[in-house]
Amino acid sequence: MGFWFSESHTDNVKLNILVDEQLYSRQSNYQKIDIFQSREFGRVLTLDDVIVLTEKDEFIYHEMLIHPAMAVHPAIRRVLVVGAGDGAALRELCRYPDIEAIDVVEIDGTLVEACQEYLPSCAVGYSDPRVTVHIQDGLKFIRRLSDVYDLIIVDSTDPFGPGEVLFTKEFYGNCYKALREDGIMINQHESPFYSYEADAMKRAHRRIKESFPIHSVYQAHIPSYPSGHWLFGFASITFDPLKDLDAERWNALNIPTRYYNTDLHRGAFYLPNYVKDMLGEGR
Amino acid sequence: MGFWFSESHTDNVKLNILVDEQLYSRQSNYQKIDIFQSREFGRVLTLDDVIVLTEKDEFIYHEMLIHPAMAVHPAIRRVLVVGAGDGAALRELCRYPDIEAIDVVEIDGTLVEACQEYLPSCAVGYSDPRVTVHIQDGLKFIRRLSDVYDLIIVDSTDPFGPGEVLFTKEFYGNCYKALREDGIMINQHESPFYSYEADAMKRAHRRIKESFPIHSVYQAHIPSYPSGHWLFGFASITFDPLKDLDAERWNALNIPTRYYNTDLHRGAFYLPNYVKDMLGEGR
Repeated sequence: MGFWFSESHTDNVKLNILVDEQLYSRQSNYQKIDIFQSREFGRVLTLDDVIVLTEKDEFIYHEMLIHPAMAVHPAIRRVLVVGAGDGAALRELCRYPDIEAIDVVEIDGTLVEACQEYLPSCAVGYSDPRVTVHIQDGLKFIRRLSDVYDLIIVDSTDPFGPGEVLFTKEFYGNCYKALREDGIMINQHESPFYSYEADAMKRAHRRIKESFPIHSVYQAHIPSYPSGHWLFGFASITFDPLKDLDAERWNALNIPTRYYNTDLHRGAFYLPNYVKDMLGEGR
Repeated sequence: MGFWFSESHTDNVKLNILVDEQLYSRQSNYQKIDIFQSREFGRVLTLDDVIVLTEKDEFIYHEMLIHPAMAVHPAIRRVLVVGAGDGAALRELCRYPDIEAIDVVEIDGTLVEACQEYLPSCAVGYSDPRVTVHIQDGLKFIRRLSDVYDLIIVDSTDPFGPGEVLFTKEFYGNCYKALREDGIMINQHESPFYSYEADAMKRAHRRIKESFPIHSVYQAHIPSYPSGHWLFGFASITFDPLKDLDAERWNALNIPTRYYNTDLHRGAFYLPNYVKDMLGEGR
């Protein structure tokens, strides 16, 4: 037995995943939250019927969200994570003993509770004593802050629904202000392949450029996301993602990773021509 | 109106593509050949119900199949292409004026005819006077050859059905013999994500290692293939894919590409840890 969960990548393309059981389903104040047990991908978290993570490949997304910035900036002590209700971004951050404090701002407390119950391999990140959880709106939280963080991680959903505010010029400007003078902001940057995500990607990049002097995009292979070709933004005030990569320092930390390594770090920033054209970054 | 073409990536995962029209369908002596008109991907070629190429993203596969070797070996004059009935690998090769002769060995003449009629943007490669088409078995063709080619492109289907022989130790050994002393063999190397392709990938890599002293694997984002994370093999007698990359020479050729560039060339060889582990290449 089982049933097919179906996600529309466009009006004309769908990915279907065989599911044995629906473990959780609730309409929170912000979104519809579902967790399925699937055969190929293990547990699958969806928000408003869009896959947010699967147990099989979330390691790719979360390693690539966290480790590139950590291998560039040599002294990250205070971190803000916006979104990331599942906790897996925290799990990766907590591998670094030098990080002193991590604030998480997640608008949807129901999502945090659901992940703590049904996705313990992600939510393990919440158990670290350095983590402080703030259940509130990310934009409101960050507006009042100035010169606080070395790293801000914007682990948003797509820019439609509750995640929309995390793709605005106002939000990026506030992130810049909340960073210390050599801070880095990493964001979930959508995908170049289907026009729906590609348009969002172009908009986000234009807005980030208006706030940050250094603005690069890097890529990863994430099979459960539409097209499998996913992007992240590296926005920074002083550090360059390639020139300032300190591979020796990062490798000496002996952090276990299944996707990220410091060679791949370099490769991830070397984008295809069609993506460079979309970003207006020239060839 | 329209109907959904459905490809099973595993028993538990399917990609569905909305199709307006079936343009072609025939059972040849070797395989079932279908060509569809789809909304998202343009025309789609399937063999035995598996997507071989789509008009929207075939440029990624074919650029990555051809240009990396051409940017490494400075004097490629004679090329053999095994498989590639669609002609798009030829199209990319024919952009190089220094190539003198290209042999194509395709087992299925019906496939060549179908692509010439319905996929002209791929089959354009057949019209170059340097191309000679041999409709016969690739293994039989290559067995009798020694010290002939600078480059062999193995543009096979999956290693099940007519493509199976192109993944054998005997075939790779014959490719080695058919190459000149500094020759390169590039092959379609399956994918690391789903176990079906990953097992084929590991087998192919083990066998290539037995014949070639230099054996690397590189990757590309190909959304219409299972998981979107696809690999190519770079097997070589003397040239190293990174140390011998001559970016300046290649860029001076001014070959138009939408995916490949010489920075991305480097990045494509920097594999994720889990893929390196599968290949037994160490970290």
